[in-house]
Amino acid sequence: MTPEQEKEKEEKGEQEEQVLVLDAMKRYRNGEIWDFEDDMAVSDGHGGGENGVLLGLDGGTTSTVCICLPMVPSFSHSQLQSLPILARAVAGCSNHNSVGEIAARETLEQVMADALSKCGSKRSSVRAVCLAVSGVNHPTDQQRILNWLRDIFPSHVKLYVRNDAVAALASGTMGRLHGCVLIAGTGTIAYGFTEDGKEARAAGAGPVLGDWGSGYGIAAQALTAVVKAHDGRGPSTRLTNSILQALDLSSAEELIGWTYADPSWARIAALVPLVVSCAEAGDEVANKILLESVQELASSVKAVVERLGLSGQDGKDAFPLVMVGGVLEANRRWDIGKEVVNCISKYFPRVLPIRPKVEPAVGAAWLAWNFFMKDCYS
Amino acid sequence: MTPEQEKEKEEKGEQEEQVLVLDAMKRYRNGEIWDFEDDMAVSDGHGGGENGVLLGLDGGTTSTVCICLPMVPSFSHSQLQSLPILARAVAGCSNHNSVGEIAARETLEQVMADALSKCGSKRSSVRAVCLAVSGVNHPTDQQRILNWLRDIFPSHVKLYVRNDAVAALASGTMGRLHGCVLIAGTGTIAYGFTEDGKEARAAGAGPVLGDWGSGYGIAAQALTAVVKAHDGRGPSTRLTNSILQALDLSSAEELIGWTYADPSWARIAALVPLVVSCAEAGDEVANKILLESVQELASSVKAVVERLGLSGQDGKDAFPLVMVGGVLEANRRWDIGKEVVNCISKYFPRVLPIRPKVEPAVGAAWLAWNFFMKDCYS
Repeated sequence: MTPEQEKEKEEKGEQEEQVLVLDAMKRYRNGEIWDFEDDMAVSDGHGGGENGVLLGLDGGTTSTVCICLPMVPSFSHSQLQSLPILARAVAGCSNHNSVGEIAARETLEQVMADALSKCGSKRSSVRAVCLAVSGVNHPTDQQRILNWLRDIFPSHVKLYVRNDAVAALASGTMGRLHGCVLIAGTGTIAYGFTEDGKEARAAGAGPVLGDWGSGYGIAAQALTAVVKAHDGRGPSTRLTNSILQALDLSSAEELIGWTYADPSWARIAALVPLVVSCAEAGDEVANKILLESVQELASSVKAVVERLGLSGQDGKDAFPLVMVGGVLEANRRWDIGKEVVNCISKYFPRVLPIRPKVEPAVGAAWLAWNFFMKDCYS
Repeated sequence: MTPEQEKEKEEKGEQEEQVLVLDAMKRYRNGEIWDFEDDMAVSDGHGGGENGVLLGLDGGTTSTVCICLPMVPSFSHSQLQSLPILARAVAGCSNHNSVGEIAARETLEQVMADALSKCGSKRSSVRAVCLAVSGVNHPTDQQRILNWLRDIFPSHVKLYVRNDAVAALASGTMGRLHGCVLIAGTGTIAYGFTEDGKEARAAGAGPVLGDWGSGYGIAAQALTAVVKAHDGRGPSTRLTNSILQALDLSSAEELIGWTYADPSWARIAALVPLVVSCAEAGDEVANKILLESVQELASSVKAVVERLGLSGQDGKDAFPLVMVGGVLEANRRWDIGKEVVNCISKYFPRVLPIRPKVEPAVGAAWLAWNFFMKDCYS
């Protein structure tokens, strides 16, 4: 689905979605998020057919998407693309590092309930859930999330918790875990997998810990450049007028209050298009910020590819590089994604860049299918 | 007062202080922070003598100190140093950008009540308050804080709200506002004043907006270096073992959870001594972080001195540079403060570095005296 198609689809379903969201909120306020299942008493509650359904979730720092696919055990791997999307639900941030665990958990539970409700399915008809969520950096994170997923679903439901990077990779490789994925949206991470199950990651440690190639990192550097131009530490830059005007502020000092008024990383990252515009208009400061972000993003990919030996011993094997996220999909004259590929090609000439046609949540649902088939039929 | 004397003083007063803090907390839980004034009905409530008292506050990102001095209008400027400290109270962070406005306000009100209670004074005997608090970056910040100070004190009390940098400068210049002050503790800022009342500042916009020379900035770069060494983006470094051991963590991945578990900037800045130790032990990564922080700190001073023309037209006039904060006072073999002075001396050979003998809160109280004398007697 292209971004245009996706937008169209979202607009079409907007009214229906608003009604559902309001309903869901009402239920949730009473702690009755799953009450809709009772209303389905006379139906079979198997909206996805007799084999039940799969849930794929992509939980990022900006938004969380849940996709519901029918479970079709007779399909082969290559047919996955033809599985129809039964339902799609959207919610806010579910990164527990960013919003805290309680809010993250509420968001994830709500978005799953919305998706199941939309396609007339119950939790009992779910076969597998693949929850790919940013901020899962350690087995203890994974286990904690698995534990409360376990509380939500009946015991027969297979549950898989992964970092959101895994879903993004799967969205470009049809659910196969091989190659490298680079995500650069509000945050950034590079994640790689080999055929024999080894994995490695680089970056993805958030804005305090050096994710300078992320949307947040680019925008924070742009804000810093405005402050430095104002106080005499740095050269003057078009970024000053561009950002102050966009935020309706009258001075660089007011930027400080604006920056700390709201801890949301996504709000800062939303300034990236302004940085790109300034660089396109010839601003040297903006240009330098983007060039450095390209180096940072490329160095993440390089670290992963080298650690896993994805490019073979002589560095010339082909491997897929799935590229996902607003920073890489900008489709602008100053094309960050293209520059990252140029940079990586110097080290690994046979890198195969892929820009997925489906969103990461679909990749997560395909992964749920893959994991389930492996667990139950192999 | 040297850091050693200060420590000794604090230890001596510890028991007394704990009792007072507990009392104060009890009162405050009932919303009765100023109740102690009623108990002073029979005394005159003029602990500072008939001319009343002055309050000086230094509100930083790590702690807030309130000093109470007697008001002596007959003193001359140069005699200020001999004013006895009637009381000293300490509380936590009062930077509204860091802890939010409600918590900042509570902290400031509490610490003022503690100081007055300790020296047996009431609010009615206060002549002037100089509140120098970090995070005051704009006239609107200043006005907001002035408004609620106005609610606390009787109308005859003169109130002055400034950035905490001003108090630090005054602590090195005996309350005179001339020269440049560089603060580098958890945060950093350079602030300068000319004889004729012009002022300029650089940095001080917090960790998101490029305060890389601050304690937080140094430590965040060290944490980033550990993450980069772990994921293959950077060289290996002594910082890894040093920091993981100090935080009792077993892997670099656990650092991510540790970093975002608590939003306090001071907690991260507390790692600076480890970075200095690693640099002293020859670690190149730690050394580079410190060298870059020296450049950042020097560039803040340079920007302020140039904008104000503090070094004269030929750059050779003498001017005081007051240096304050844990990063600059480290007293280590790798001496960040000394390197900053070396760096600045290249541009401004007649810079006069001053390491104040009193704490910034005393500077704030001296300022209160200065401002009051100017407002009432000139």
